[in-house]
Amino acid sequence: MSAALALSERTRGRTAPNPNVGCVLVKDGRVVGRGWTQPGGRPHAEAMALAEAGEKSRGATCYVTLEPCGHVSPRGPACAELLVAAGVARVVIALGDPDPRTNGQGVAKLRGAGLVVIERVAEDAARAAMAGFLTRQVRGRPFVTLKLATSLDGRIALPSGESRWITGPEARAHAHLERARHEAILVGRRTWEVDRPRLDVRLPSLEGRAPRRLVLSSTGDLTRPSDIASLEGVDHLLVEGGAETAAGFLREGLVDRLLLYRAPILIGSGKAALGDIGLTDLPAAHGRWRLIDTRTLGSDRLEVYASN
Amino acid sequence: MSAALALSERTRGRTAPNPNVGCVLVKDGRVVGRGWTQPGGRPHAEAMALAEAGEKSRGATCYVTLEPCGHVSPRGPACAELLVAAGVARVVIALGDPDPRTNGQGVAKLRGAGLVVIERVAEDAARAAMAGFLTRQVRGRPFVTLKLATSLDGRIALPSGESRWITGPEARAHAHLERARHEAILVGRRTWEVDRPRLDVRLPSLEGRAPRRLVLSSTGDLTRPSDIASLEGVDHLLVEGGAETAAGFLREGLVDRLLLYRAPILIGSGKAALGDIGLTDLPAAHGRWRLIDTRTLGSDRLEVYASN
Repeated sequence: MSAALALSERTRGRTAPNPNVGCVLVKDGRVVGRGWTQPGGRPHAEAMALAEAGEKSRGATCYVTLEPCGHVSPRGPACAELLVAAGVARVVIALGDPDPRTNGQGVAKLRGAGLVVIERVAEDAARAAMAGFLTRQVRGRPFVTLKLATSLDGRIALPSGESRWITGPEARAHAHLERARHEAILVGRRTWEVDRPRLDVRLPSLEGRAPRRLVLSSTGDLTRPSDIASLEGVDHLLVEGGAETAAGFLREGLVDRLLLYRAPILIGSGKAALGDIGLTDLPAAHGRWRLIDTRTLGSDRLEVYASN
Repeated sequence: MSAALALSERTRGRTAPNPNVGCVLVKDGRVVGRGWTQPGGRPHAEAMALAEAGEKSRGATCYVTLEPCGHVSPRGPACAELLVAAGVARVVIALGDPDPRTNGQGVAKLRGAGLVVIERVAEDAARAAMAGFLTRQVRGRPFVTLKLATSLDGRIALPSGESRWITGPEARAHAHLERARHEAILVGRRTWEVDRPRLDVRLPSLEGRAPRRLVLSSTGDLTRPSDIASLEGVDHLLVEGGAETAAGFLREGLVDRLLLYRAPILIGSGKAALGDIGLTDLPAAHGRWRLIDTRTLGSDRLEVYASN
């Protein structure tokens, strides 16, 4: 299942409205097929893995990060039926599909056809891997990551507005990799007009991965953070600033994940990372975030926090 | 030498104007004497270790973190002479004594008496352990540690001034332990009057360790950060705030070590950790600090940075 989860990461941010699923077919202790949801959402991971395995699917065990779909769609057959037709013997599933069109029906079809089904293997890891799809299903909006790049004292620019560079090349490269894993990037109108950010992916061989660029503006399509619910084909949204836009998303409880890049510098007077997030007392600030990852990027440090 | 360095830490912040030295006497593979500079500066570490070892000093090896003093002072004999008189065979020294009254004369006396002397063992670690004494000798001022306790976005209080609590009990206990390792704590006048901090050591059995309390004030003895040079008996100074006082020390290049306690909370609008530190461009901010320690304290994180 770890291998299937790793495969599912390949297209994180490029499969909406479909989940990014990973699938591994194992027969006689050997991997005979690997698949992951393709960009745009089709083919599904199971279809890809079955195609690779061919005749070796017969009697194999399928490890898949999400319950195989049980419904036929205009865009393709139901994966549960494909697995049955291919003669797969066992299916190990990380997470049930909350999509009401499947939601247990995939499992029912498999069991009805005599396959052995094992559920809830590495379920938490699968939830994390498919957070975009699940947030869309459960909350009706994209999974939102807020990126901040600050000094040790929480500044994002000098009083003059100078902000190049706070973090070093390794941290900036990592931030570009994160862009490639999101369907869209959003900035506030002021940041858009003043900083004129390119918001592209400047990494070798990933130049084509630039996500949709969105601007929050009182005069545009997105006037409030909550308007992101209406974004079609966006299950992963990266909010990159500025301070007021970031604060707006936090104020409305719309940030699921915080990427905090920190340079080992002090700035003192300057621009703060966040505007008013609507906090009225300190106890209310506690217990909202937990550190889930930390790494060194050149001389900078990245901390990743998840919303509780 | 590691054991001698550990012993030297026992009185860090309580030996000024003397260095906090550690000493271990070893004979036939066994520790026969241990010593560390006593509060107030006397007896010296070597005298204490020799007293514990007694007759076992004869033929022993002495590991000491600083060159034994070579001068007789009104307060006691020269340690080099004590070691010779006790019949110690070898002396292993981490760091030469920059005090002009010794500065090589301790080693000369030992060698002159026929002892084997090995120098510069774990020299860097000894520099760090005796940073207060060395900073006083070399720069003519105390070693300054700046403590900041902030949210992830660098805030130290809400707009209302509410700052209790940002960090949790483990981080606050650690900060009290740090107080006990400093001869004095300094805050700005405004912090002194508004927050009325107790600046004591609220840790079991360390209650008596409260350092001198100093206030930076335009009307007091300390009007500018550089006035700390005149503080007698203070080789380790802990600066605890507020933002303008902290910034003043940074502006004048008077911070040697930064203790950054960070709680996993976001505050948004609020009081910044630092005022104007005199930074005019971002490149000048880089390369000044390096991370030397990091640890988890409850749900908070402590990062320790050293000035380059």
